[in-house]
Amino acid sequence: MAVNLARPEAASLHPVAGVRLGVAQAGIKKPGRKDLLVVALDPGTVVTGVFTRNRFCAAPVVVAKEHLAAGPGARALVVNTGNANAGTGGDGIARARKVCDAVAAQLGCRPADVLPFSTGVIMEPLPVERIVAGLPQAAAALRPDAWLDAAEGIMTTDTVPKARSARVQAGGRTLTVTGIAKGAGMIRPDMATMLGFLATDAPLTPAGARAIVAHATERSFNCITVDGDTSTNDAFILMATGAAGGPALEAASPAFDALRDAVTEVAAWLAQAIVRDGEGATKFITVSVERARSVDEGRRVAYAIAHSPLVKTAFFASDPNLGRLLAAIGYAGVDDLDVEQVRLYLDDVLVAADGGRHPAYREADGQRVMQQPEITVRAVLGRGEARATVWTCDLSYDYVKINAEYRT
Amino acid sequence: MAVNLARPEAASLHPVAGVRLGVAQAGIKKPGRKDLLVVALDPGTVVTGVFTRNRFCAAPVVVAKEHLAAGPGARALVVNTGNANAGTGGDGIARARKVCDAVAAQLGCRPADVLPFSTGVIMEPLPVERIVAGLPQAAAALRPDAWLDAAEGIMTTDTVPKARSARVQAGGRTLTVTGIAKGAGMIRPDMATMLGFLATDAPLTPAGARAIVAHATERSFNCITVDGDTSTNDAFILMATGAAGGPALEAASPAFDALRDAVTEVAAWLAQAIVRDGEGATKFITVSVERARSVDEGRRVAYAIAHSPLVKTAFFASDPNLGRLLAAIGYAGVDDLDVEQVRLYLDDVLVAADGGRHPAYREADGQRVMQQPEITVRAVLGRGEARATVWTCDLSYDYVKINAEYRT
Repeated sequence: MAVNLARPEAASLHPVAGVRLGVAQAGIKKPGRKDLLVVALDPGTVVTGVFTRNRFCAAPVVVAKEHLAAGPGARALVVNTGNANAGTGGDGIARARKVCDAVAAQLGCRPADVLPFSTGVIMEPLPVERIVAGLPQAAAALRPDAWLDAAEGIMTTDTVPKARSARVQAGGRTLTVTGIAKGAGMIRPDMATMLGFLATDAPLTPAGARAIVAHATERSFNCITVDGDTSTNDAFILMATGAAGGPALEAASPAFDALRDAVTEVAAWLAQAIVRDGEGATKFITVSVERARSVDEGRRVAYAIAHSPLVKTAFFASDPNLGRLLAAIGYAGVDDLDVEQVRLYLDDVLVAADGGRHPAYREADGQRVMQQPEITVRAVLGRGEARATVWTCDLSYDYVKINAEYRT
Repeated sequence: MAVNLARPEAASLHPVAGVRLGVAQAGIKKPGRKDLLVVALDPGTVVTGVFTRNRFCAAPVVVAKEHLAAGPGARALVVNTGNANAGTGGDGIARARKVCDAVAAQLGCRPADVLPFSTGVIMEPLPVERIVAGLPQAAAALRPDAWLDAAEGIMTTDTVPKARSARVQAGGRTLTVTGIAKGAGMIRPDMATMLGFLATDAPLTPAGARAIVAHATERSFNCITVDGDTSTNDAFILMATGAAGGPALEAASPAFDALRDAVTEVAAWLAQAIVRDGEGATKFITVSVERARSVDEGRRVAYAIAHSPLVKTAFFASDPNLGRLLAAIGYAGVDDLDVEQVRLYLDDVLVAADGGRHPAYREADGQRVMQQPEITVRAVLGRGEARATVWTCDLSYDYVKINAEYRT
């Protein structure tokens, strides 16, 4: 069902020196499924990340933040699917720590050097014993060119593994950025996405890594929504091994900016891939709000459109019932919006202006655009110079099916 | 599909002296369907109402507000389905005025005494000529006991007409309250609902009528959501004919309070009926948030739960995947929420406490409640003494079907 999203070629995913990945079938939820990923990092790797703002954040999020706060280094990531270890209270924290202990013993590092991540069903006890039993298999599989395997190992309702590489020339060197991510429901990231892991061999200071993560997140994972449900487990992690050599890239230098843009491009590609493979998605929708008074205002309008079940079902039906777009703009909370100033476009087709349907608009033109698998909605508010973009998908029978049957 | 909502008996709907109703088949969208309602009011009737806050409010909303602002009286309401006359700019306003002119000519009153209402598809021109042609039929049908007919005449995707009566003893007299409403999608009223019309024979001052509307709205139409989409056409109107006789009820008198409570009870019943007959609804869910710091905070949490597509699909599936409820509470925007203090109940079953699943919770208990057609979610936040209640329904295949095929 994914919209214009093919399975990536393994050869397109460049290894990142200093990073090895290993996957296991630990039988966490059901047997015969890759459900456990271990990422081993060379000493000296700078790791930073952003996490969900959901107050019911998952136990692994609590532990990963604690371990990152103790210092910007990490030697390993461990990711399980099939169980989110969220809404599990103090017992969940204890189980996340046990997993870190076991990874540390397996790889020969300290438990505080291990960052745990989980995704899957909420409010059920994490099966620690199965994860621990699967660790030797994952550790034995560790190798630098296993990014596609890793992308598969973190899938839940995703139908396509999501992985992307970029290379950038910076300061006379070639730097590599490779990342993986997963969706595909409970997607309305607030400071991070479900799970996204990016690595680079560039040398970065912790502050430089944090600046790049903030920049990239605002332009990628924080611009997507599938269903408006902010996950308990969102995390976006950047690992900078420094294996490319040399001193840390200096903030605002051309090399730093080139790397920042490469990370942002990979992150944006992965974020869009999550939407393309959103639960039940048949359309990929770009909602672009222009001439807003502020970026916040633009986002509010873009998310009102992107979250409206009526707009999303109209996209699913390829029905240019475009009054629903006006209604969503109207209730987005811009209290002094002058609807006479709003112009609404569907791709290049001007649909509405002066408070109503544009005289030149023809239903056949709207119909033509609505039938495409990729559609851009442009709402021009006429209030200022700020703009915001949100990527989303439609709402189909399959979204209901997938989520009604999620645990069966 | 409506949940525990039967077609009302015509005999259960008490006429309100001073109010006559007439319905016509005007062929506005398709032939052979009751789609036009005229309500005629005796002179001296006090009329007040609240309307949508959607900035793209419909032309009839603009005109009805203007006519009400000119004075608290009105002699007629005219309601058409099949076309919302919203997102139609200046031309839409002109068309709404033409309908008022025609009703005034038909009934012998001033155009400013007529309040117009429309519901249906957005951003298409109102077929004024068909409405005008249907008015004589509606006028000829005017009679006091046509409330059930009237409820049918304003239905769109509703499957059951919604009408309710109450009688109350106040100051030695029997006062009557009768009302009708419609849903069934684009339902997340903001100060009013899609369309709700209540009449009483009680004598009220304009200020008294406004106070009762404000009180009732906050406890009825402003507590429901089907899909989170705030309509362009929401309106809730109270008509007080005074035909019961005597001086206007004095604010805060026992008689006034009794009437206020009767109006609120009828409005709440109608609001709940809209949810019970929500598009595709198979379950009626009461979301009750207790011990919030403020009513606003309680509502924010209740609406986060009620709007979550993941929560709504779990209800549809009768699947006690209750971690989704915790996730919604966690992202509702209560930044300093202490999740250890939150207690979550499904009817009488304690599901979560101390940040996770309660030790005594058994899946079988959750399953039992989830299979019921009516379910109460209670989230006790442990932060204060405020509470808020929201009524909503589940998200089913039929919601997608109804809205994907709405215009076909």
